[in-house]
Amino acid sequence: MAQENPITPRATDFAEWYQDVVAAGELADYAPVKGCMVIRPNGFAIWENLQRELDQRIRDTGHENAYFPLLIPKSYFDREAEHVQGFAPECAAVTHGGGKPLEEPLYIRPTSEAIICTMYGKWVKSWRDLPVMINQWANVVRWEMRTRLFLRTAEFLWQEGHTAHETREEAEREVRTMLDVYAELCESVLAVPVLRGRKTAAERFAGAKETYTVEAMMQNGWALQGGTSHDLGQTFAKAYGIQFQGRDGTLQHAWSTSWGVSTRLVGAVVMVHGDDAGVVIPPRLAQVQCVVLPIHGKTDEEAAAVREGSARIVADLKAAGVRVRLDDRENLRPGAKHYEWERRGVPIRIEFGPRDAKAGTCVVVRRDEKGKSPAPVEGLGKPIAALLSKIQGEMLARARKWRDERTHACDDYAGFKGEIDANPGFYRMRWCGSAACEASVKNETKATIRCLPLDEPDDSGPCVVCGASAPGRAVFARSY
Amino acid sequence: MAQENPITPRATDFAEWYQDVVAAGELADYAPVKGCMVIRPNGFAIWENLQRELDQRIRDTGHENAYFPLLIPKSYFDREAEHVQGFAPECAAVTHGGGKPLEEPLYIRPTSEAIICTMYGKWVKSWRDLPVMINQWANVVRWEMRTRLFLRTAEFLWQEGHTAHETREEAEREVRTMLDVYAELCESVLAVPVLRGRKTAAERFAGAKETYTVEAMMQNGWALQGGTSHDLGQTFAKAYGIQFQGRDGTLQHAWSTSWGVSTRLVGAVVMVHGDDAGVVIPPRLAQVQCVVLPIHGKTDEEAAAVREGSARIVADLKAAGVRVRLDDRENLRPGAKHYEWERRGVPIRIEFGPRDAKAGTCVVVRRDEKGKSPAPVEGLGKPIAALLSKIQGEMLARARKWRDERTHACDDYAGFKGEIDANPGFYRMRWCGSAACEASVKNETKATIRCLPLDEPDDSGPCVVCGASAPGRAVFARSY
Repeated sequence: MAQENPITPRATDFAEWYQDVVAAGELADYAPVKGCMVIRPNGFAIWENLQRELDQRIRDTGHENAYFPLLIPKSYFDREAEHVQGFAPECAAVTHGGGKPLEEPLYIRPTSEAIICTMYGKWVKSWRDLPVMINQWANVVRWEMRTRLFLRTAEFLWQEGHTAHETREEAEREVRTMLDVYAELCESVLAVPVLRGRKTAAERFAGAKETYTVEAMMQNGWALQGGTSHDLGQTFAKAYGIQFQGRDGTLQHAWSTSWGVSTRLVGAVVMVHGDDAGVVIPPRLAQVQCVVLPIHGKTDEEAAAVREGSARIVADLKAAGVRVRLDDRENLRPGAKHYEWERRGVPIRIEFGPRDAKAGTCVVVRRDEKGKSPAPVEGLGKPIAALLSKIQGEMLARARKWRDERTHACDDYAGFKGEIDANPGFYRMRWCGSAACEASVKNETKATIRCLPLDEPDDSGPCVVCGASAPGRAVFARSY
Repeated sequence: MAQENPITPRATDFAEWYQDVVAAGELADYAPVKGCMVIRPNGFAIWENLQRELDQRIRDTGHENAYFPLLIPKSYFDREAEHVQGFAPECAAVTHGGGKPLEEPLYIRPTSEAIICTMYGKWVKSWRDLPVMINQWANVVRWEMRTRLFLRTAEFLWQEGHTAHETREEAEREVRTMLDVYAELCESVLAVPVLRGRKTAAERFAGAKETYTVEAMMQNGWALQGGTSHDLGQTFAKAYGIQFQGRDGTLQHAWSTSWGVSTRLVGAVVMVHGDDAGVVIPPRLAQVQCVVLPIHGKTDEEAAAVREGSARIVADLKAAGVRVRLDDRENLRPGAKHYEWERRGVPIRIEFGPRDAKAGTCVVVRRDEKGKSPAPVEGLGKPIAALLSKIQGEMLARARKWRDERTHACDDYAGFKGEIDANPGFYRMRWCGSAACEASVKNETKATIRCLPLDEPDDSGPCVVCGASAPGRAVFARSY
């Protein structure tokens, strides 16, 4: 199923480049259904590895998995006014089942607060039943017409955690715990550095008191929201009836949270690490971390030596815990294999031919840097495992350097207007907190406030738009 | 969230018992959406363990995971006449998206041949692109009004494998390989013995040439179809255009298969192993294989000794690879904990009190047999791990004995009519192969042919219904 499409260089057209590398790596394909995508095995393996890593972290922080229904009656959304305003316009509605019209339309979940909070309301009676800490891995649908594979599709895969707590403080702690889990996941697994911050009211989840986000920078300087964690206060507990008898005997509403990351993150990995030859997968996300390419030579004797040597390499790497694949397909030339694995972004390629077999060496090629270096076959497992860790660390450092070079403190709005398209990046500008100033920037430059960073030092001064007093700096950027 | 509902004994009403144990174990709950269920953490953990075991087997047999869209245009179903006849009547249809009516209704997938074969048609060009061997874990919807948790719900979770091959023989081999994977999964992981067999034309998957099945017997003598594997011949390749240039240069249609198991299997585990005290989970499926219940005694000194001893037990069990949970909740009495873990079906319970702490012993209680036996605390890991294996094996043997005692060779149709309700079970009766005789039995007794077993010895003779010559015996039973 190799497709020999050329890849548009990033510098020529970043959007085209993105489409090309996703296609060339066979990560995903457009489905015939408008707005929907097919996640192909190479792309799905990235998601599965991310999922496995995140799932473990979700369990380690005390959550359990469960599964709630896909279909939610429209009337359930109506119970929370802001929530329905935010989501109803992008819902897909089931109006017929088993050939008959339904009495009430069912929405395919765009997010599951409406159904999950309803069930919690049924299950929770006393403070002893709290906290409820449940996560689900699921598909959701939000009607989208302008789609990009992974980044924006009508259907996508995600996890959504939903918790209910006895106290406001406990809920707030939960929201921040999960934000930190997302930040750590992005940095240590995806090798994608992120800013942690609060969203402005305009960018909040519909119905939330506070939305926290992790924001990453793509190679074109645009921002991508990597995951969000919402403090829902008592709003949803009141709308959906999550009430409990407190320790003092009074009836109280629970404090709830929700938080999620989606298959968008696969798009982020592509846009942060990819190069003009294709995607580059960080070792911890790669299904195949190292591919061994035997080059069989001319005589039977040579072929036998190569076969034997590559089997030994594979065994050594497996023993060292490396996810290794031997590519011994005979109907493909080495050059074709080479390009296929490069386009798939496999972190390390090992080439092994008759001369190597004689010398007891092989050639190790890094995908991220493309440097070739010889290595002894004997005891190859440990150095390759170490090299994978090194690559993982260097990919993160490189991405962080890239981001930091494109992050600017800026006190001059006119200058910003000139820069944001020519030099896209994160612009740290003082903002007074008014929706009007935020809207002006958006209307005039298409840049939005990505977040109010948590780790920002106190830096009050005049708002970059109106000059009124601003408590500190917000991060403005163009975004996906 | 403990619910103290009493459990109806199996002998009183098996259907009521099933509902009661599913509720008491907090495995699942009815959703407010008609026909849909919520899979609660205790039930979902069973599915996740099953999923992990099966996913490994699916990979080991050469398949990769991917993800295809939830929504399929109605016209795609229309391309395969038998398929659309079988599934269209039970589809849920999306007619509106983003507030606007759609040009064409989209069906929520009831199964994904229509979309997956379409994509294969796009990807496959040459024999070199074959085989394609992809699996997906997904939710599907088949409109159902009479629902039972896990067994029959409008939405359920499953895996569906879809493969395309160069030759008929390869496809046939694939169908049987996956049937064997399902049989082995049921027996060695679920401890549910199964018959492997072919379905009759009346019971086949809509559009298949041949459907193979694994059939299990529940404790009430009814059958439950555990998984199916379909030989689709070239039918779907022709309908959806999976064509390739063969080794001889001619254009050919691929041979395709599909196969799946679903969350129904969780219902099977409940109905095969449960008892009047609740569900009983086989150790290999249990999220918690062993729970340690400390009983704290009266003095601080006693409590400290119990705490220390239980921590040591937990550490020993973890080191031996046992999935262990310490239940040190202080707001619940030991009796309440005991019942909660019993209703959840945890295979082994270890009780540990002040007297045990002094004596260096503990009390080990099996869930399946309820026998209590003392054991030394020292070096407890290995014997508990061994006991889990023993329980797993004995649960399978017990279920097999139960089934075999209720499996009868029967040559007397009148006698069968009297027996099938009074003594439900598997009735092995000769069948001539005619749809008319099959339909008579169904109309007169509600029993259907569950399968034509693969391992049946030659046993020709007169058809039990019409007396015409029959090649062998089919298995008749009432079924879910």
